[in-house]
Amino acid sequence: MAITGVLRIGEAALRVLDLEESIVHYRDRIGLQEMARDDEGRVYFKCWDEWDHHSLVIREADETGLDYMAYKVSSDAALTNFEKRIRDYGVEVENIDAGVYLKSGRRIQFTIPSGHVMQLYAEKVKVGNNMPAHNPEVIPDEGIIRGMGPTRLDHILIYGPNVPECGKFFTECMDFELAEEIVKDGTDDQLSVFLACSNKPHDIAWVEHPEPGKLHHISFFLNNEIDVYHAGDIIGKNRISNDIGPTRHGITRGATIYFFDPSGNRNEVFSGGYIRYPDNPPLRWDESQLGPAIFYHDGKLNESFLTVVT
Amino acid sequence: MAITGVLRIGEAALRVLDLEESIVHYRDRIGLQEMARDDEGRVYFKCWDEWDHHSLVIREADETGLDYMAYKVSSDAALTNFEKRIRDYGVEVENIDAGVYLKSGRRIQFTIPSGHVMQLYAEKVKVGNNMPAHNPEVIPDEGIIRGMGPTRLDHILIYGPNVPECGKFFTECMDFELAEEIVKDGTDDQLSVFLACSNKPHDIAWVEHPEPGKLHHISFFLNNEIDVYHAGDIIGKNRISNDIGPTRHGITRGATIYFFDPSGNRNEVFSGGYIRYPDNPPLRWDESQLGPAIFYHDGKLNESFLTVVT
Amino acid sequence: MAITGVLRIGEAALRVLDLEESIVHYRDRIGLQEMARDDEGRVYFKCWDEWDHHSLVIREADETGLDYMAYKVSSDAALTNFEKRIRDYGVEVENIDAGVYLKSGRRIQFTIPSGHVMQLYAEKVKVGNNMPAHNPEVIPDEGIIRGMGPTRLDHILIYGPNVPECGKFFTECMDFELAEEIVKDGTDDQLSVFLACSNKPHDIAWVEHPEPGKLHHISFFLNNEIDVYHAGDIIGKNRISNDIGPTRHGITRGATIYFFDPSGNRNEVFSGGYIRYPDNPPLRWDESQLGPAIFYHDGKLNESFLTVVT
Amino acid sequence: MAITGVLRIGEAALRVLDLEESIVHYRDRIGLQEMARDDEGRVYFKCWDEWDHHSLVIREADETGLDYMAYKVSSDAALTNFEKRIRDYGVEVENIDAGVYLKSGRRIQFTIPSGHVMQLYAEKVKVGNNMPAHNPEVIPDEGIIRGMGPTRLDHILIYGPNVPECGKFFTECMDFELAEEIVKDGTDDQLSVFLACSNKPHDIAWVEHPEPGKLHHISFFLNNEIDVYHAGDIIGKNRISNDIGPTRHGITRGATIYFFDPSGNRNEVFSGGYIRYPDNPPLRWDESQLGPAIFYHDGKLNESFLTVVT
Repeated sequence: MAITGVLRIGEAALRVLDLEESIVHYRDRIGLQEMARDDEGRVYFKCWDEWDHHSLVIREADETGLDYMAYKVSSDAALTNFEKRIRDYGVEVENIDAGVYLKSGRRIQFTIPSGHVMQLYAEKVKVGNNMPAHNPEVIPDEGIIRGMGPTRLDHILIYGPNVPECGKFFTECMDFELAEEIVKDGTDDQLSVFLACSNKPHDIAWVEHPEPGKLHHISFFLNNEIDVYHAGDIIGKNRISNDIGPTRHGITRGATIYFFDPSGNRNEVFSGGYIRYPDNPPLRWDESQLGPAIFYHDGKLNESFLTVVT
Repeated sequence: MAITGVLRIGEAALRVLDLEESIVHYRDRIGLQEMARDDEGRVYFKCWDEWDHHSLVIREADETGLDYMAYKVSSDAALTNFEKRIRDYGVEVENIDAGVYLKSGRRIQFTIPSGHVMQLYAEKVKVGNNMPAHNPEVIPDEGIIRGMGPTRLDHILIYGPNVPECGKFFTECMDFELAEEIVKDGTDDQLSVFLACSNKPHDIAWVEHPEPGKLHHISFFLNNEIDVYHAGDIIGKNRISNDIGPTRHGITRGATIYFFDPSGNRNEVFSGGYIRYPDNPPLRWDESQLGPAIFYHDGKLNESFLTVVT
Repeated sequence: MAITGVLRIGEAALRVLDLEESIVHYRDRIGLQEMARDDEGRVYFKCWDEWDHHSLVIREADETGLDYMAYKVSSDAALTNFEKRIRDYGVEVENIDAGVYLKSGRRIQFTIPSGHVMQLYAEKVKVGNNMPAHNPEVIPDEGIIRGMGPTRLDHILIYGPNVPECGKFFTECMDFELAEEIVKDGTDDQLSVFLACSNKPHDIAWVEHPEPGKLHHISFFLNNEIDVYHAGDIIGKNRISNDIGPTRHGITRGATIYFFDPSGNRNEVFSGGYIRYPDNPPLRWDESQLGPAIFYHDGKLNESFLTVVT
Repeated sequence: MAITGVLRIGEAALRVLDLEESIVHYRDRIGLQEMARDDEGRVYFKCWDEWDHHSLVIREADETGLDYMAYKVSSDAALTNFEKRIRDYGVEVENIDAGVYLKSGRRIQFTIPSGHVMQLYAEKVKVGNNMPAHNPEVIPDEGIIRGMGPTRLDHILIYGPNVPECGKFFTECMDFELAEEIVKDGTDDQLSVFLACSNKPHDIAWVEHPEPGKLHHISFFLNNEIDVYHAGDIIGKNRISNDIGPTRHGITRGATIYFFDPSGNRNEVFSGGYIRYPDNPPLRWDESQLGPAIFYHDGKLNESFLTVVT
């Protein structure tokens, strides 16, 4: 495939209520590497198998939620091209100089129809994945993989209005593709869309929700489905608030467990799911099949899963 | 170890409301081998890796539940010895001739303090585990392992009164050992006991309950923890009523999923758990820790799990 | 990412010495679905999770090896574009009309510098992945997943001359990217290149070899690393000639097992490996590190693995 | 089962050539807990899930091999009984006072027909399995499970003469049972016997060998078969000498990997295998089936595996 354009979610910036508790959670329970702290109190983390400097940023605030999500694009030229396409689409775009964000090249920022702040950038300082690029190993040194041991930040699921318009905006301006959708039975009305810009079953997803700009969860990838069980053990051991799981999604087929950080932001670690290609037909789920679509093993909806967002 | 005495649960006999639906469930979903049907309408099943003729018997009846559970002992001499010890303990014992039960040698039958009918027997016709004993293989032919693919019937959890007395009876008369227990906080009052007669963390367990003779679940063993996930997929695919899971038990440390047969009898498939030795200290859980004791991943009790019995 | 261009290997066409034995191997041992047989004696197979009509074609011949490999591209326009770029690069391109190949749209065919016949096509009849696209399931019906149960044809590794030129041709004309390479120590001389056109660590790979057009192996993907173990059990059970494994590759980090079809063509089933992004640095292995690069668990080279090709 | 008599291998005492290298190997690579060092230079280790003070003892010496193996019995009365039975069998027994061995009660010591020194003991100081016995957890604190993360010392395989006599001695005097055997084709002549005193497929095994008292390997148990893969990654990463694996045994059905400690003593980590009951028929393998019996996945014998002992 011509791999150009948006590569992946490269950064999620969360607000937390208690910074120290949150550091313990993300560093010791999920098992991220703490990479830096800045003068404004932000703490930066990466997963062990990521090459770039950081993928998660947290800061203490009075309320939880998502400051912004930033997707990495393949080149500065691609960034320029996306800027033009987004402006041409009628969306206001803000330019942010290189260096304003830690270890980062220039960014563009805009608000998407669901009310979330999104950024695109092409450059971030590379620090490596804990193994050399010349004669690498398959695992890093003992102690680098800790906690749940995720390899990377994988995707984000957000709640807000105008979900169909979000899908349209991302496919038309940023070349995302519709992987799966939930519709009102017998209609094309999308209540939820799952979009991919890769061979993964999703890189971003929305659920229709009246309040704009809300976060449902950020998700980290685990290498094997059995690792979801290990994550559950860590959740139990540390009395982390478990939302649901282990279970499997009908949508994406991933093995998953959901839990909350100490401030109430939802996290997911997951594994598996199919390898998606652009010639796969988009998969459609009826609203009446929401049970198995979301939690395949029991087909039952969990009230908190559908309603608690930050 | 001197391996003598009670070996394992060798047979569970369940009542079901609809025989044909139940056959589909146990044969095609759980994946047992249908071994025989008798003139009274009983259907006999075994797991693929069991050597004896059958381990599960179902029959159609107006109400669900357990007819009896039968444990296999190491020899006819052991059977005679247990008969004497049980009678000496003051429990009435009934003798059942060889051949009364299909493919089975003589049995003794008695009612335990929780109101359940229990049998012991030393002989059952061996049909083999689908692989030869001379130059065996490690897997049987394609198609033998089906559905959830359990290797054997593993244990039973029953509800009834007099749980501490059940524990005493089984340890004193049948050499079971206390593996784990749940007690009222700060007391020795047992609400639940998990007994083992093997290196497994349990071979039988009770929960205190006013009504005698009730079944909580029969449980089948899976070779790997990840197989619990596959069982969940089969449960979802076939819209089997899922009670809870996949999750992990604090008690026994097993990876587990619970679901109901079409009549409402609860089944479990599980894997893992520790290797138990008689010099392990019994593990004690306080009633206030019932959440993590039962479902470690979320530490939350599930009302149906605690109250629905057949 | 702009997902355009070459999507994946869509078809490998192998010559086998005994068709019936080969059908048993690919259908019953590996577990592919037999989709069709044609008048010239070709047999067509697909993996259970593939949407297109077939991905493996075998025919009986006097000698083993690869007839051609066909990669699917994202659209007819992309096909036209590749045709032009390849011609402009100086490579002769043959046009093949729609319908010449079973269930297939038009193709272009050319010989790559390593002497292998390659095809590109944009259309093949879709038959589905054994689950509906509207309210799908996560697993197909019992019995569909058989044998080793691969989800898809994943990649091919071929032997021939001019490996660096092959890498150049694929990156310049077909937008593949260099994922990993093996070089002579202290030089840039490539002995082997692993190229990707997706988020997988490789979609095609070469090893330098004097004889052109040779096949090292075709590879199928398994969902979980533990499935490689199950594949090993099937190999052992059926006395399939095992080349090496289970083991892990240093290159790609995949869990793998290699074996031969009844005619001696090498097959691989594998799982795992990292998620590759185009901004990952290419990984370089020195020839002196070939041991861990290929078989990480013992770091020892296997003579047959390096020399037996068909 | 009446769980009395020999419980398990409780201690293996190895000679190593370089103590410091060996400590790194057993502590950091295999992941044992270093428990003590004594005045004679012995270093004591345990696995994280074992309750007793230690299970492995190493000391520096001029040549590698096994000093002794010590099996734990269920009670002091059982110890006295075994002492009498062994003496009555005609084997000389030495008494060792409590306290002579670190943290240990009294022992009896004798030489078995294969020339190995064996001890039995009933008491060793309990230190716990890193989790409380009152309201335990399912996993210990982060960092306790390290390296390959075995839960316990599982069994030993030894080489020496008089294998059939060893089997007779262990079954007649110590109530072991024959789980599997390798015989010369068409005869009852045992070349190798696998004996169990538990529900595991073996607790000790022999291979006929002219030189007495040799060690083939000590083996540690892993919770899941996939953990064998992780062990392989650690072996590769640390360039530990890998003998063979990952693979599966035909005998016991275990998933396994073999490697050498820095001095050349062979270690195994394994998982899986069937749950053995005393009413299972012993499994017999012909010498001509030694390939699949030992390494099921390729059915090929490895010269070093059969000949290198310490």
